[in-house]
Amino acid sequence: MANKPKVVIIGGGFGGLQAAKALANGPVEVALIDRKNHHTFQPLLYQVATAVLSPGEIAQPIRRILHKYKNVEVVLGEAVGFDLEKNLVHLHDGSEIPFDYLIVAAGARHSYFGHDEWEQDAPGLKTIEDAVEIRRRVLLAFELAEREAYLTGVRKHLNFVVIGGGATGVEVAGAIAGIAREALARDFNLIDTRRALVQLFEGGDRILNAFSPDLSAKAKKDLEDLGVEVYLNSFVTEVEPDRVKVNDKWIAYDVAVWATGVAASPLGKQLGVETDRAGRVPVNNDLTIPGRENVFVIGDMASLKQADGKPVPGVAPAAMQMADNAAANILRDLKKEPRRDFEYNDKGSMATIGRNKAIVEIGRWKFNGFFAWCVWLFVHLISLIGFRNRLYVVSEWFWAYLTRERSARLITGDAAEMRETPKMIGTTKPAALPEPALKRKKTAR
Amino acid sequence: MANKPKVVIIGGGFGGLQAAKALANGPVEVALIDRKNHHTFQPLLYQVATAVLSPGEIAQPIRRILHKYKNVEVVLGEAVGFDLEKNLVHLHDGSEIPFDYLIVAAGARHSYFGHDEWEQDAPGLKTIEDAVEIRRRVLLAFELAEREAYLTGVRKHLNFVVIGGGATGVEVAGAIAGIAREALARDFNLIDTRRALVQLFEGGDRILNAFSPDLSAKAKKDLEDLGVEVYLNSFVTEVEPDRVKVNDKWIAYDVAVWATGVAASPLGKQLGVETDRAGRVPVNNDLTIPGRENVFVIGDMASLKQADGKPVPGVAPAAMQMADNAAANILRDLKKEPRRDFEYNDKGSMATIGRNKAIVEIGRWKFNGFFAWCVWLFVHLISLIGFRNRLYVVSEWFWAYLTRERSARLITGDAAEMRETPKMIGTTKPAALPEPALKRKKTAR
Repeated sequence: MANKPKVVIIGGGFGGLQAAKALANGPVEVALIDRKNHHTFQPLLYQVATAVLSPGEIAQPIRRILHKYKNVEVVLGEAVGFDLEKNLVHLHDGSEIPFDYLIVAAGARHSYFGHDEWEQDAPGLKTIEDAVEIRRRVLLAFELAEREAYLTGVRKHLNFVVIGGGATGVEVAGAIAGIAREALARDFNLIDTRRALVQLFEGGDRILNAFSPDLSAKAKKDLEDLGVEVYLNSFVTEVEPDRVKVNDKWIAYDVAVWATGVAASPLGKQLGVETDRAGRVPVNNDLTIPGRENVFVIGDMASLKQADGKPVPGVAPAAMQMADNAAANILRDLKKEPRRDFEYNDKGSMATIGRNKAIVEIGRWKFNGFFAWCVWLFVHLISLIGFRNRLYVVSEWFWAYLTRERSARLITGDAAEMRETPKMIGTTKPAALPEPALKRKKTAR
Repeated sequence: MANKPKVVIIGGGFGGLQAAKALANGPVEVALIDRKNHHTFQPLLYQVATAVLSPGEIAQPIRRILHKYKNVEVVLGEAVGFDLEKNLVHLHDGSEIPFDYLIVAAGARHSYFGHDEWEQDAPGLKTIEDAVEIRRRVLLAFELAEREAYLTGVRKHLNFVVIGGGATGVEVAGAIAGIAREALARDFNLIDTRRALVQLFEGGDRILNAFSPDLSAKAKKDLEDLGVEVYLNSFVTEVEPDRVKVNDKWIAYDVAVWATGVAASPLGKQLGVETDRAGRVPVNNDLTIPGRENVFVIGDMASLKQADGKPVPGVAPAAMQMADNAAANILRDLKKEPRRDFEYNDKGSMATIGRNKAIVEIGRWKFNGFFAWCVWLFVHLISLIGFRNRLYVVSEWFWAYLTRERSARLITGDAAEMRETPKMIGTTKPAALPEPALKRKKTAR
């Protein structure tokens, strides 16, 4: 360990992991701190939430990913603050980790626009736990409707609400429609799962607004073909346990998923600089924070404009490019070379809507449909970390494609914890059914 | 639905599921009630607890298993009692399900001999949630030891304690030793996971006492070769958060697993007959309870002696044979044929100890070692429900065998929930490390 400079990285997401790899075998001692033991491949979280993949297939122990780099130590712990005068990171348990360089890459979550209490009713999708919770709610809604039909003869149709028409919202809405129409339809005797309603509410005037308008329009058409009702210019202004207010109208739901807004990790506020409305930290062109040449902020936590004035987007490739830049600048410092500014290299965007349906935009090259879907599959598969994960995910996909089944339909917890019967407005409910007492408790992991 | 007799089955384990299959397409309406949405293949739970398999690989939605039988309805719910005069099952939510015939197959858990509070410190292994909780504790113990080594330089060796030398205890102890010696050793820089201690305490004078004494001795030798310390005639009489009392000596531990004792489902006590000390219901030779010709109790909940005076063992094959007998007797009733008594057909026993090590006893045919291990693998693989599960489990096994890695090393929950630093007696602990505040809370699912 001796006298090598110490680089502490906060976060084992795309940015943090890439920074660790870029510094591996360099003349530094690296410590990567994460509050989870695993890296999560977030682009496929929606497939865990909709029972295609199992959690373990898109999560990999950070320790395993980095085990071959002997100058990288992985520490399980939650960074809660910093002492930037003394160059220390404070962990949740009161312990301190000293650094010479700090790379903060703690990412972002969804923002509830000041209404964090909405999360219990409309969870977002950023972690494995989120995905398992959404899966639980979706599968449980069908189970409870079947039970209600058995006990009372009332066959209700489920209402799923997805809030936000970005990539996550579109993927979740398309996948829930897919489950209801294909995978579950044969397994329920009494209810007709195909009559479930999936509604997507987007505040803007088109979905997937990171893409060009014609691709947005095609994606909307694709979603509608899958049976999703897409509502544009539709702001969700209130969320209650069984209904959301969209513009001025209340819409009842059984399961709601939140897929809009960005809130950077609260760690950004601990860095002593003013953050933007989303909690992002404005960084210099070399990704350091003002006044601290040894403190880098990268990925979804960083706010930086490109040369053309457009912000660097909060996407995995940008986080990884920032990681490479920050790591390279640290190594340049050690060689007494001048630092270089970060430049974002946009490699294009893609989103999937459902079976055989996706859109891809790479510069001026735009396409959709089956070929776009194949490109989406291929790019996500090669980006997955670990040969084994790739093997398992490709076989799960092949299985799901062939059989139209979903493999990962596990609801954890007991029925007694499953009292979360979603209340339906205007639906006659038998007196015997339980109150949604545990609605507000996140039970599944 | 009309006028067909209604058979209600409580429980979707080996017994309940087999009963539903045996009644499928018969002149009855069947409802299977389970508080979980999935059937769990309990013989492989220890592999989930030790990160070989993922939960979804040994769990299958009950609804999916039975979807092709149109006279079988699957209802998610927890039976909490009965009205045997009116032929009703009471569910947890106050609703009632009427029956003409009732088959109670709610299984058993481990018994803590009147000390249920021990469960939080030494969980048993009967459900997916149990397995995930044990996996979390085992993996977390290594993570916390590594963190402690990083923060303080103190490299401690972990102590794992397994209580009970039946099949589950032996399998868990062997698998934890395997993890520590092979799978994790390469991934930790500071601690030497191979120096972890695994101690197995058995109250009787040999382990695996369902087998003949020579096989028990061989299994003990195999376990010891894997590095497990096996203590016979060693009763655990107290369990505390960081130590167990074995006979008169306190033994410190980081993670304890409980694998002894049988407590039948408390539902047995709701049937109005006297249960035995383990809560089992004494049944007539046709598996009905005294005085109730239409109420069957099968599987681990039933207490019945074979013709030779030996009790029918609480194993999956016995539960499935009982299910077939109960179902056949119901169908005989409907045809006005006389019922037949249950006869247990012992097909032999097997247990696995670790890589290439198992014991098998079929009548007078006894063997151990690599061939026994292959037989164990084969029998468990073909018993798994679902072609997909078989495919995935065999490939996970193949992967683990080749690479000596463990695939399913996911710890859910945040570091802030991971304060469960196991306290070590006599070990200097840094003041900064957190108190095990959440030790008593079962957080992971």
